[in-house]
Amino acid sequence: MEDKKVNETSQKHHMKGGDGPDSYACNSEYQKQVLISAEDLIRQQIDEHLNIQSPSFEPQYTFRIADFGCSTGPNTFYGVENIISAVKNKYKKSNQNQTPDFQVFFNDLIGNDFNTLFRNLPSNMIYLVACSPGSFYDRLFSRKSIHFAHCSTALHWLSKIPKEVIKRGINRGRIHYLGGEKEVKEAYAAQYEEDFGRFLNARADELVDGGLMALLMLGFADGDAFSLSGLRIKYEILQSCLEDIAELGKITKEKVDSFNLPLYFPSESELKALIEANGSFCIEKIAKLASPLRHKPDPKGSTLQTKAVLGMVFEEHFGNEVVEEVFRRLLDKLVESPVLFDNKYWKDTNYFVFLKRKGVN
Amino acid sequence: MEDKKVNETSQKHHMKGGDGPDSYACNSEYQKQVLISAEDLIRQQIDEHLNIQSPSFEPQYTFRIADFGCSTGPNTFYGVENIISAVKNKYKKSNQNQTPDFQVFFNDLIGNDFNTLFRNLPSNMIYLVACSPGSFYDRLFSRKSIHFAHCSTALHWLSKIPKEVIKRGINRGRIHYLGGEKEVKEAYAAQYEEDFGRFLNARADELVDGGLMALLMLGFADGDAFSLSGLRIKYEILQSCLEDIAELGKITKEKVDSFNLPLYFPSESELKALIEANGSFCIEKIAKLASPLRHKPDPKGSTLQTKAVLGMVFEEHFGNEVVEEVFRRLLDKLVESPVLFDNKYWKDTNYFVFLKRKGVN
Repeated sequence: MEDKKVNETSQKHHMKGGDGPDSYACNSEYQKQVLISAEDLIRQQIDEHLNIQSPSFEPQYTFRIADFGCSTGPNTFYGVENIISAVKNKYKKSNQNQTPDFQVFFNDLIGNDFNTLFRNLPSNMIYLVACSPGSFYDRLFSRKSIHFAHCSTALHWLSKIPKEVIKRGINRGRIHYLGGEKEVKEAYAAQYEEDFGRFLNARADELVDGGLMALLMLGFADGDAFSLSGLRIKYEILQSCLEDIAELGKITKEKVDSFNLPLYFPSESELKALIEANGSFCIEKIAKLASPLRHKPDPKGSTLQTKAVLGMVFEEHFGNEVVEEVFRRLLDKLVESPVLFDNKYWKDTNYFVFLKRKGVN
Repeated sequence: MEDKKVNETSQKHHMKGGDGPDSYACNSEYQKQVLISAEDLIRQQIDEHLNIQSPSFEPQYTFRIADFGCSTGPNTFYGVENIISAVKNKYKKSNQNQTPDFQVFFNDLIGNDFNTLFRNLPSNMIYLVACSPGSFYDRLFSRKSIHFAHCSTALHWLSKIPKEVIKRGINRGRIHYLGGEKEVKEAYAAQYEEDFGRFLNARADELVDGGLMALLMLGFADGDAFSLSGLRIKYEILQSCLEDIAELGKITKEKVDSFNLPLYFPSESELKALIEANGSFCIEKIAKLASPLRHKPDPKGSTLQTKAVLGMVFEEHFGNEVVEEVFRRLLDKLVESPVLFDNKYWKDTNYFVFLKRKGVN
């Protein structure tokens, strides 16, 4: 059963590799700003909840950090260095003579461009480097071997399009659940429930007793998912680009109809309910993060960022040439649309979720 | 000090990436045959020396294997699967109900093509996959965290050309120590002593007490290093190719003079002396392996294999265009040379070295 699930996760749901002008490495300022907005919260939570007196955290052990959905850098390095600095600080404050050594595992899908990640490794590394390729919806590490799990702006990726949506074609005319029929939203929510549950189960296995987990997650405020959000409008613009290309006869209407984005944006109450239902973690903190980059509408930057993130999913379904045309058209339309310029459309929210693995210690 | 050494190892000393017709993945049959020739020995040695009664090897712990110098596959998968199968067998024979889970760390230089490695991962994996990029002459893992270290046909790569050879230009007119002056050989041997010592120190830190290490190493029988070996002749042919290209004015003679291959082939007595001087390991077995592929002289295959292995070193020094010409010329000359056709030139030897980490258990 577990084996089958492994194969179900598309290996194409990864960011654009390399470090060229359209790469994720060069177009992930938004994701960096999310990390920055959570920096102090992570430090505070580590200070408050890392129990260095527990046997799992004795300083002679190597302290193992895993970043799930690391992509190609450099954001991932920024995130883990903040964690390491806060953990060291905690050991030092406790008048221990020793701080542990650190080992960082960078995780992303097998198709991720790890070559670029490694080429971008900081030259003054203060930790042992490892990586672990594979879907974070499966178990990736030994039981009780990870001390700190980190996952930033990655958990909105579903492992796959919900079966119902594909089989029954209930989302024809849309490429996403936002603004769509209730049953489509429910199918996406059910897929998210399954996926996030698998994520929590896998991490529960891997984390030591008292191990910590920081999740930075894109979502919506409770009740907002069906409203006129910027994300919904952007996806509708992308959809209209596909329709334009279909009208020119370059792709079929059926091809467009069978395309859906494997993304889900939960609300705070959904998150809480799923974590509590899982039962392996204490919720130490859930908070909304400040919204990054809203002050500077930038159609070109927004197009490049969207292409770096979603380009591979479009490419998998439509092929490379169509992708280029879709995003050329997206740029033209974003310039004309109010979506980037009017505050009222910015309703997506970034959640900071800090969890502690329950255990005997 | 240690930090400085990290930077000294060239990141270009890796195999040709991808899986195209000139890739290492497609031109490593020789290396596969070396693995095959050691297969039974590894199984016997594991059966004899793996002490599963020791606390380090309790089956509830994940059994961690590291393959140093893994390149892009598929050979590395073949090697580790043989180890896993032998280890499982040992647990089963001992009437234990449990066999451990396995985690395999694939190591190679940061410049190695890990993307291809991951793309080639077997679909039916029986272990957790991780990788660890970096020079195996440095420490790569936590202390006492690895149960089995494996390194096949990789330790003949020096971390760098010996300083003496570069500074004093004592090897002008040759690209390797084989067949060269005594002081050149001594400089190479000294570099090997330093490098292999660093390898052993790093692994001594990383292996659990009683941890095992299998090394498959290219070398020479004692006293044979200066004789008329096939390797020496092949390097002399490569050198003559460079000289031809220099005569055409495409590269300078100085460029050729400053080029040296960072490879060293130890003898059995050198290996023994260095391992004993290090002191952290018991030598459980040293044996010569059967020589693979000697029955079928194949200039084209030999050229492709040499290019897949050494191409990056030539490219680093001479640039890409020269590499193509060097190996076109190598093929022409190998067809004319007796080196692949006459048994008397085959004097390099593959050593099987099996070590056990000394410790309280």
